[in-house]
Amino acid sequence: MKKKRNLFYAQSGGVTAVINASACGVIETARKEKGQVGKIYAGRMGIVGALREELIDTGKESARDIAALRHTPGGAFGSVRYKLKSIQESAAEYQRLVEVFRAHDIGYFIYNGGGDSMDTANKIAQVAKSMDYDITCVGLPKTVDNDLPVTDNCPGFGSVAKYVAVSTLEAGIDVGSMPQTKVFILEVMGRHAGWIAAAGGLAGKDRSEPPHLILFPEVPFDEDRFIAKVKDSVERYDNCVIVASEGIRRPDGSFVAESGTRDAFGHAQLGGVAPHLAEIVRGRLGYKFHWAVADYLQRSARHIASKVDVEQAYAMGKAAVKMALAGVHGSLPVIVRTSDDPYRWKVGQAKLSEVANVEKKVPKKYITADGFYITEACRRYLAPLIQGEDYPPYKNGLPRYVRLKNQLAKKKLPDWQG
Amino acid sequence: MKKKRNLFYAQSGGVTAVINASACGVIETARKEKGQVGKIYAGRMGIVGALREELIDTGKESARDIAALRHTPGGAFGSVRYKLKSIQESAAEYQRLVEVFRAHDIGYFIYNGGGDSMDTANKIAQVAKSMDYDITCVGLPKTVDNDLPVTDNCPGFGSVAKYVAVSTLEAGIDVGSMPQTKVFILEVMGRHAGWIAAAGGLAGKDRSEPPHLILFPEVPFDEDRFIAKVKDSVERYDNCVIVASEGIRRPDGSFVAESGTRDAFGHAQLGGVAPHLAEIVRGRLGYKFHWAVADYLQRSARHIASKVDVEQAYAMGKAAVKMALAGVHGSLPVIVRTSDDPYRWKVGQAKLSEVANVEKKVPKKYITADGFYITEACRRYLAPLIQGEDYPPYKNGLPRYVRLKNQLAKKKLPDWQG
Repeated sequence: MKKKRNLFYAQSGGVTAVINASACGVIETARKEKGQVGKIYAGRMGIVGALREELIDTGKESARDIAALRHTPGGAFGSVRYKLKSIQESAAEYQRLVEVFRAHDIGYFIYNGGGDSMDTANKIAQVAKSMDYDITCVGLPKTVDNDLPVTDNCPGFGSVAKYVAVSTLEAGIDVGSMPQTKVFILEVMGRHAGWIAAAGGLAGKDRSEPPHLILFPEVPFDEDRFIAKVKDSVERYDNCVIVASEGIRRPDGSFVAESGTRDAFGHAQLGGVAPHLAEIVRGRLGYKFHWAVADYLQRSARHIASKVDVEQAYAMGKAAVKMALAGVHGSLPVIVRTSDDPYRWKVGQAKLSEVANVEKKVPKKYITADGFYITEACRRYLAPLIQGEDYPPYKNGLPRYVRLKNQLAKKKLPDWQG
Repeated sequence: MKKKRNLFYAQSGGVTAVINASACGVIETARKEKGQVGKIYAGRMGIVGALREELIDTGKESARDIAALRHTPGGAFGSVRYKLKSIQESAAEYQRLVEVFRAHDIGYFIYNGGGDSMDTANKIAQVAKSMDYDITCVGLPKTVDNDLPVTDNCPGFGSVAKYVAVSTLEAGIDVGSMPQTKVFILEVMGRHAGWIAAAGGLAGKDRSEPPHLILFPEVPFDEDRFIAKVKDSVERYDNCVIVASEGIRRPDGSFVAESGTRDAFGHAQLGGVAPHLAEIVRGRLGYKFHWAVADYLQRSARHIASKVDVEQAYAMGKAAVKMALAGVHGSLPVIVRTSDDPYRWKVGQAKLSEVANVEKKVPKKYITADGFYITEACRRYLAPLIQGEDYPPYKNGLPRYVRLKNQLAKKKLPDWQG
């Protein structure tokens, strides 16, 4: 009979509305495997928690609180942007991780993050082998940006897509009611990939309905063509609703958000594609405008999460545990689409090395020839991902989100001098 | 037996998530009064529709579509910011309105808007009397800003309050998950009154939870005190979540949003308190920050409307018709609170003249002595207004909002030369 080993789970990078649903899938599944899994730890602030030996003992949390993770946004154990470098450059860190794992008899490591984290998980897997430490490392995909390859889509994306589509629909109706407002710009996330902006396109049946324009980071921003499109939309439909990715760039590669706006002190104005575009529209067309920047609101909007996304996030967490217990080292569960309509998907597997450090951008076939809208093929891809509502419970008018106790396990090693 | 007369309903000013619920209340109630009400018209783009004799014949809409107005945001007939001046200055316009009313035998006029609109309704009532035209003019309160006097609260406010409270709660959890982000600023509406910003305070039980700071237009913005508060919050709670009203002003009366930021062309940067505050924080404290501007998203977010607000908006519409039919000229229905907990309210009546042109700001007793948070009294006032969810129906992942046919009645007068 196999020896019982402990499990370590960590969240990485920007959080999402459903990363805790994945955590819920991990913990609930692992709790059922009492024969193989001993303690279930989570890293306090992700991988940094492992480096500092700050392991949260999830065994202290009630079944009810763990179940509530399914409907709670954010990262319940804390997340962090912390990228380990190459094995050569960060040797001490990788060795420290393996020492902590050894001290706490971690036999299963599940790393919940994007492309960088899949790379880190892969490297940890390699170092552990080289140090002759027996551990199964499994990735668990997460990113609102939807930019991981191999998997059909990423948990976290469907919910931000739904938020952006619903918000665009609602703001578009508002703008349509107000004949004096001619241009509305919604800025959404997506530094390098325009998936989130593309999702705004689901708000209308075609370009005659808001959004009339979508600005992708994949398409160089041409100010003259943009202005011509805005003017055309206002003349045709009486207004122009725009969904703009934060990451759009000018043909010279500079971010539009950073091009030239300075405050009274001469500092470059940080962030804000939307106000910058609004200023261009005002200067060249003189239209009355409004703009919104969704920022964290979009990725934490659990109140309007996609049911498909929640189910997939949970299923990925569950599958990661199953793979870890089966010893499928250096891999991750992925989502495989088997049908667009009716939408069908299943859990597949991929190697961490296939997913690490590859950005999946919006392909040409998903963007119209003029560069300002989504194609029907893109719509077929996106539409299933926002299906269904999965409302959290409410109390006194607000969602009842859980806050865990997050008690740390006793340390066994000297403090980390990282 | 009283002669049947026609009814004219118009929406005015910025729309809300529930102004159509009021329209629904008006039309459904008037449709039941076949003995007294003939045609039910709505102004295409509010009062401008009356001036242009563009009267939408709501009789062309199905009962089902009218019922769907209850869950559809925006202004279904179009709204407009158009303020009639004094009776002396705008005599021709007032006379034109009465002529249009006379041509279409309008016996009941219901004007759905804020303080300005209540003033306009009141003036129309006076001019009609002076022209010996028999009409009952009734107001129907609406404003996200919650700044009307007499009524305990305004339809439209409860839903934006819920949106802001939920968004602050969710973004606060997100920020709390990301140890590197120290400051988050959510900019909300409220040019002169800080009710919407105050509602953000419902997200936390006290100042130890997000939001840690609330910036009201009622409190002059003191940059040094603001910076000290931000620093204190970050040191105490590891981050600082701020809800800022767009209308905050410096002690000299200038809007913070407009103070000094210029683009590359030297234009004053329009709008955006949040990026401006972020820039101040960056310059003086160097913290990593994020900011969001909700703009139209907050007032059109029907997907997360307050059930109390929807019910009140509908009830006000219904009451306005009853008052019109009862000949309660120059008045409007108001919301009267009879108990905080359990929350109880009833429909009352007020005179248009009491409500016109008076702005109800957040009183001193609702703002803490330091000027950066809400008091318990404020919480007791606000809490009931966000109670309950009233989700719209969904199809393919998106709310099913109705779009009316909006067919115009045949004109009877020469074109308006306004």
